[in-house]
Amino acid sequence: MSERRGELIVLSGPSGAGKSTVIAELLSARRDIHFSVSFTTRQPRTGEADGVNYNFVSREEFERMIAADELLEYAEYVGNYYGTSLKVIRDKLDQGVDVLLDIEVQGAAKVKERCPEAVLIFLIPPSIEELSRRLHRRNTDPEETIQRRLEKAREECRESVHYDYLVVNDAVVTAAGEILSILEAERCRTPKRLHLTQSIVGTA
Amino acid sequence: MSERRGELIVLSGPSGAGKSTVIAELLSARRDIHFSVSFTTRQPRTGEADGVNYNFVSREEFERMIAADELLEYAEYVGNYYGTSLKVIRDKLDQGVDVLLDIEVQGAAKVKERCPEAVLIFLIPPSIEELSRRLHRRNTDPEETIQRRLEKAREECRESVHYDYLVVNDAVVTAAGEILSILEAERCRTPKRLHLTQSIVGTA
Repeated sequence: MSERRGELIVLSGPSGAGKSTVIAELLSARRDIHFSVSFTTRQPRTGEADGVNYNFVSREEFERMIAADELLEYAEYVGNYYGTSLKVIRDKLDQGVDVLLDIEVQGAAKVKERCPEAVLIFLIPPSIEELSRRLHRRNTDPEETIQRRLEKAREECRESVHYDYLVVNDAVVTAAGEILSILEAERCRTPKRLHLTQSIVGTA
Repeated sequence: MSERRGELIVLSGPSGAGKSTVIAELLSARRDIHFSVSFTTRQPRTGEADGVNYNFVSREEFERMIAADELLEYAEYVGNYYGTSLKVIRDKLDQGVDVLLDIEVQGAAKVKERCPEAVLIFLIPPSIEELSRRLHRRNTDPEETIQRRLEKAREECRESVHYDYLVVNDAVVTAAGEILSILEAERCRTPKRLHLTQSIVGTA
């Protein structure tokens, strides 16, 4: 094990909040962060690649992983499974590597339950109007799906009260910058650094 | 009152931890931070100016301020009073201005008691050897005073467990950078930003 344990950062936010763009910005600024790629049974969207955006698996395979307790958390969302591999994350944290998870609110609550030291960040769009614009601009889904996403977004934003931090994605660079500051601040939390006072207190 | 209330940041650390240098670095990076100048009855050291490093007052005047309840906190330390004006700080926070206090551990505990939202940061030197070197290098005090400071430093570092964050002052720019990140992160805390989700949740 490394002297410093990695930080476990959970990022949630409604569809259209711009999580993917913010994550790309984060990872380009801090190449040492391990981005945990989720497993899902949903179909890839245009431009999404297996092993990059998600690990795309069959429903059968996903249910085998559940049965084998290979998942830190999993949830069903609009008819599809989404889940996070336990082993990869645990290894990275032990090595002192910071791990970033992109998961929805049900999954985040389960992670906090199993790993209370996890830092939960909720990414919100600047307004419901802007969120609607972004979902329409994406333009790959029928209006009914978009309306369902907007309603889902409202529900999810109500859950943001359970998160440690709220970050507004108005400008991507600002949002990513705030998340980097949160990460740096969390490393300075007293319980994680008490060993540093030992060389002073201990020689009394 | 401003929409956003300012953050109240309390910085403590033993004599020789390098607080003054770190504070100078902080204030040059963030000129909008209000640095609250403490009142003290101790004699100015070489290079210290009234109203800049401290407001130097007589013991008589200080005891009048205590009686008039004009102080957020005050404490006696190595025979001298140190205290913080309540009114100035309250006004600044209401205006949305971040306020930085440089106070010792007894005072910090009192601030946290009266203002639970205050963020307490403890600055530690990299080691007791480095602290001793710094105190000797300052070279203005007799050896006996230095030894008393070292012992006091050990005692104070034991109190760091009550602080929210620990920052090691190995390199000034790094230490100041960590404090700036803490300040930015604290602004993102959920309770301080819940109003931002209202435009989304509220229109359901």
